[in-house]
Amino acid sequence: MTENRLERRKARTRAALVRAAQEFIANGRLNAPILEITQSADVGMGSFYNHFESKEDLFQAALENALDTFGQVLDDLTGGIDDPAHVFAQSFRLTGRMHRRLPELSKVLLHNGFEFTKSGRGLAHRARRDIDAALAAGRFTVADPELALVIAAGSVLALGQLLHAEPERDDAAATDQIAEDLLRMLGVPADEAREISRRPLPDLDA
Amino acid sequence: MTENRLERRKARTRAALVRAAQEFIANGRLNAPILEITQSADVGMGSFYNHFESKEDLFQAALENALDTFGQVLDDLTGGIDDPAHVFAQSFRLTGRMHRRLPELSKVLLHNGFEFTKSGRGLAHRARRDIDAALAAGRFTVADPELALVIAAGSVLALGQLLHAEPERDDAAATDQIAEDLLRMLGVPADEAREISRRPLPDLDA
Repeated sequence: MTENRLERRKARTRAALVRAAQEFIANGRLNAPILEITQSADVGMGSFYNHFESKEDLFQAALENALDTFGQVLDDLTGGIDDPAHVFAQSFRLTGRMHRRLPELSKVLLHNGFEFTKSGRGLAHRARRDIDAALAAGRFTVADPELALVIAAGSVLALGQLLHAEPERDDAAATDQIAEDLLRMLGVPADEAREISRRPLPDLDA
Repeated sequence: MTENRLERRKARTRAALVRAAQEFIANGRLNAPILEITQSADVGMGSFYNHFESKEDLFQAALENALDTFGQVLDDLTGGIDDPAHVFAQSFRLTGRMHRRLPELSKVLLHNGFEFTKSGRGLAHRARRDIDAALAAGRFTVADPELALVIAAGSVLALGQLLHAEPERDDAAATDQIAEDLLRMLGVPADEAREISRRPLPDLDA
């Protein structure tokens, strides 16, 4: 077997483990033994430790991968928008709606969340990029974009907790109101903040 | 023994357990066995279960009690301030400084935090009261004070995570900047938000 084929096989094994772990996360089965996950991935138990040090290590990779995929969807859906304030608001509003649509992903995110606000990957990384673009365009005015991101990330997590604790609450209305409040925090005038956070959203299912 | 004496003794036993648990929290000894906590409180193992169902139950009570005490200190320190926007900002700025001063309390709060944003007790309850007072006085303008509280609570927790992850970061500067951003989110004009969040603070040690 050439080195390239070996590399490809290793990548396939790792991807199979990550996909299987995402299934277990989606089904709330975080306590499943490693053996069950490797069997579900059709991978030998020995291979597991070639890729991950522990189950926590695998779940971490699975969560980062899922958030990266979700972030890629957000990027695709905001691709045609010129105004970076609109980009930030739309991504926040779709992320808020993620808590009920992908509840297990959301709960793992809430459990691990603050780690990710610093990780430079996935959603936090994208939100920071959008804040920086809006600052550069003169749409946002904050003294410290990193701390503005701390507020936005903390808000997304606290919103998720609220939506899980109160299943009868309208998640879209709560998310959009928080998006409006955050736009004001970011320096957008109040009336404009309200209008931007009530614009039609693209269909996440499409 | 009269019923009153019995009640007082029960209250003393409970308070001794709560105080002991706060010591264990402060020392980061969350894994200590119940027996060690009851010994430290000078209370019989049997009494423990008259008051608490589990160690988690006791630690929860200890955390709520500690936050309530901290909240009482905040109330005492803001007692002479007329402007409710100033009250909110000062309490937020002192709470942000709590993460490094009381790191173990802070870490337990971060671990359990979002429960407390909905608990109607302690810090969240007080912050909501201050937001409502500022709304009534026309100092804040937010459409939904409950969701504004979600943003403020999420920000305090995300700030704590940041300060623990980056021990070299200036906690006072970060906290005050976030307080300023939150005041703008709450409808305070930008220049006033900056001025209010830079006012001299009372000494927490006094």
